[in-house]
Amino acid sequence: MKELKETQEKIKKRGETLDVIRGGEIKVLQKKRGYRYSIDAVLLADYIKLKPGERVLDLGTGSGIVSLVLAARFRNVDVTGMEIQEELAGMARRSVQLNGLNERVTILCGDIRNIGEFLEHRSFDVACTNPPYRKLLSGRVNADHERAIARHEIKGTITDFIAAARYVLKEGGRLYCIYPARRAVELIAEMRQQGMEPKRARMVHTNRSSRADFILVEGVKGGGEEMDFAPPLFIYGEDGGYSEEMEAIFGNLTRPRELSE
Amino acid sequence: MKELKETQEKIKKRGETLDVIRGGEIKVLQKKRGYRYSIDAVLLADYIKLKPGERVLDLGTGSGIVSLVLAARFRNVDVTGMEIQEELAGMARRSVQLNGLNERVTILCGDIRNIGEFLEHRSFDVACTNPPYRKLLSGRVNADHERAIARHEIKGTITDFIAAARYVLKEGGRLYCIYPARRAVELIAEMRQQGMEPKRARMVHTNRSSRADFILVEGVKGGGEEMDFAPPLFIYGEDGGYSEEMEAIFGNLTRPRELSE
Repeated sequence: MKELKETQEKIKKRGETLDVIRGGEIKVLQKKRGYRYSIDAVLLADYIKLKPGERVLDLGTGSGIVSLVLAARFRNVDVTGMEIQEELAGMARRSVQLNGLNERVTILCGDIRNIGEFLEHRSFDVACTNPPYRKLLSGRVNADHERAIARHEIKGTITDFIAAARYVLKEGGRLYCIYPARRAVELIAEMRQQGMEPKRARMVHTNRSSRADFILVEGVKGGGEEMDFAPPLFIYGEDGGYSEEMEAIFGNLTRPRELSE
Repeated sequence: MKELKETQEKIKKRGETLDVIRGGEIKVLQKKRGYRYSIDAVLLADYIKLKPGERVLDLGTGSGIVSLVLAARFRNVDVTGMEIQEELAGMARRSVQLNGLNERVTILCGDIRNIGEFLEHRSFDVACTNPPYRKLLSGRVNADHERAIARHEIKGTITDFIAAARYVLKEGGRLYCIYPARRAVELIAEMRQQGMEPKRARMVHTNRSSRADFILVEGVKGGGEEMDFAPPLFIYGEDGGYSEEMEAIFGNLTRPRELSE
């Protein structure tokens, strides 16, 4: 308890917060002000399916949230998170340490556009990404530089992220991606163009009567034509609260538990 | 009544049936054995939105069902249905006559792959198609030649249908299309490739927990990026009967009424 209290004081001093997910199983450091993960990361982490022994690359890992959740969900996998921003990468590394996951999660600081300098060609089974998806000239670019890089296409477009995945993946390897539904055409057309054929997808809607907010896609390197669209995911139910399915996803990921447990 | 009875006897002799849709407002001749329209035509006819005065081309009209429904739903539009099979085109023409729609619906017999021989470049506001979508080497090609041409890519692939729409549409013109969800990537990638940017889409699922069966897409010639995915359409409700929305669609289209009305 004393150790924990000291840790928490240090965290506060650095302007960070320690958030617990998966019922306290995983702790994630985040900047109090700055880039903080949102629901898309939670949805992506839940959508990915891994097999024992697989090697996974999380492109643009940010706080490391998706990498940490994957290491917790799938015990026998090897996860690498890649992040261009040094401060975020450093914080993600400290989160890995806090969770005792050093042996299974590695955080690399680097630019996914120069991935060949960091990782070997065809060395991963799976890649995933929740990439920045606001166009540079659309919307207000965030005054906070860290948040801006994480959200806007400053250090890489979707084309760059798919190319990086393509480079590291073995033939038949899978790419999991979440992207705004309004840009689904770009994602799908670009994946096909780069030979990362979309094979499975799922639309995510706020509720039963709203347009889709996100599309989750699984592509396969060198995959053949034809794909499955899963039943849609509704975030809210008819009573205005979270849907049963979303409760289940959150139940796994964010049910609060005492830090001291 | 006597005239109607005579008509019905003639129809029977030709091996045809006379089906009523839109509460009997529209009558459609179909072969008793041969190609008969199915739910995708009904869904497409319901998805299309027209403005007064628009000129519409239905590519591969078959029995003429979509053309007839559009002329009934939107009084002030001019509809052309194009069909490669002479017998189907002739039967569709007789349906147009039976409905007294000669002034607003024209049936052309021709190959959409040579559309320039039949129709002028940039002369339509809207195109629509429920194209054949079974690949030539996939599945059993229907032993019935008429059905085979209507369902398999014998006389035109999706690429040909989109190219035909692109040819006849004015800049900013809309293409409405229904296609199997499993081939959504091909449809979307091909539309974008040909500059018929997908702007709106809707997934159609058998029920709440099933994969998508169809995708409805509206593309715009020369349209910009970004699209809307509407709330999904479920054909069946939780009680196993048609969903409320589907009842409404059918209610408009197929509620039976006496032919003699």
